[in-house]
Amino acid sequence: MIEINVKTTKAQQFVNITGDVVKMVADSGVKDGEVMVYVPHTTAGVTINESADPDVVRDIIATLDKLIPVRGDYHHAEGNSHAHIKSSLMGCSQRIIISDGRLVLGTWQGIFFCEFDGPRSRRVYISVTGK
Amino acid sequence: MIEINVKTTKAQQFVNITGDVVKMVADSGVKDGEVMVYVPHTTAGVTINESADPDVVRDIIATLDKLIPVRGDYHHAEGNSHAHIKSSLMGCSQRIIISDGRLVLGTWQGIFFCEFDGPRSRRVYISVTGK
Amino acid sequence: MIEINVKTTKAQQFVNITGDVVKMVADSGVKDGEVMVYVPHTTAGVTINESADPDVVRDIIATLDKLIPVRGDYHHAEGNSHAHIKSSLMGCSQRIIISDGRLVLGTWQGIFFCEFDGPRSRRVYISVTGK
Repeated sequence: MIEINVKTTKAQQFVNITGDVVKMVADSGVKDGEVMVYVPHTTAGVTINESADPDVVRDIIATLDKLIPVRGDYHHAEGNSHAHIKSSLMGCSQRIIISDGRLVLGTWQGIFFCEFDGPRSRRVYISVTGK
Repeated sequence: MIEINVKTTKAQQFVNITGDVVKMVADSGVKDGEVMVYVPHTTAGVTINESADPDVVRDIIATLDKLIPVRGDYHHAEGNSHAHIKSSLMGCSQRIIISDGRLVLGTWQGIFFCEFDGPRSRRVYISVTGK
Repeated sequence: MIEINVKTTKAQQFVNITGDVVKMVADSGVKDGEVMVYVPHTTAGVTINESADPDVVRDIIATLDKLIPVRGDYHHAEGNSHAHIKSSLMGCSQRIIISDGRLVLGTWQGIFFCEFDGPRSRRVYISVTGK
């Protein structure tokens, strides 16, 4: 298991971490297996979506924020309930197949760290299994 | 890793692919392990839900569409932002345990390919691990 | 694969099952690997979120219920479509890395069984892989 750091610069932001995951898989030497990307935070998440046009992740963030606004009738006193809810909706882990030493992502797919309560310094765990 | 094709016939549609996954697991000869179902598209997804009454997946599609309408204040120019958002909400992979050579699904559970920007010809990757 | 039982006491309720998963991992003797938590129901789910302040999961349940009300324009005749939709949004499985015999959860993370159509007696499958 390897830990990488992600520095976010906005309150809500998706950071493309595909390059980091590709590098970890290459470094592991695993040819056939799977890689797990795990976010150990409860106000962040990880999702796989289009990385070509940045407006796609912009639209995901904006729509989630319209459905689950920052201010609302929340009980949790820290004022970041919206971020916890978005975290559960995106999920805290993703898995991708490794075949012939390569990450099997679709043409348009990228792996995004989802910040919902930034800016912060965050951690992501990457675990490669296989042979 | 095996690839299957799914042809969708509507703009938004859930296609039950449980039979394909069951067949791949049987063909693999794996008795104890796991199967991963991975969708390499960014306007589609995969979910596990009730397969007995087709009104259940009809209600999931209709409710997602009410919350995240096809037309909206989106920036992505292709006009399918709603589909990208729904893709991240459902997720692009699912895993199911294999025990004694059988897929351990609940009584009512089926595996559904989720089309949000069809009709199209789509791919699904199925990877079986174990022994 | 081990099965645990979860008794829910409310219509909608998140039950912290972290202790059960920690125990199963310890009992397995696996030092490095992963644990999968799988819910075989279609009106329940499993998520990872903050376990310190119970108001966090209270806010998740309340917000999901505002977006996807119990009563609505649903076709499924059993009257629990809202629960099926919430199940697909939370997901029916979670995976956590095991390192040095310990579950690698973030400081604030707990594993929650998500009941959306209770109260009921429910099952959760726990599968540990690794060595």
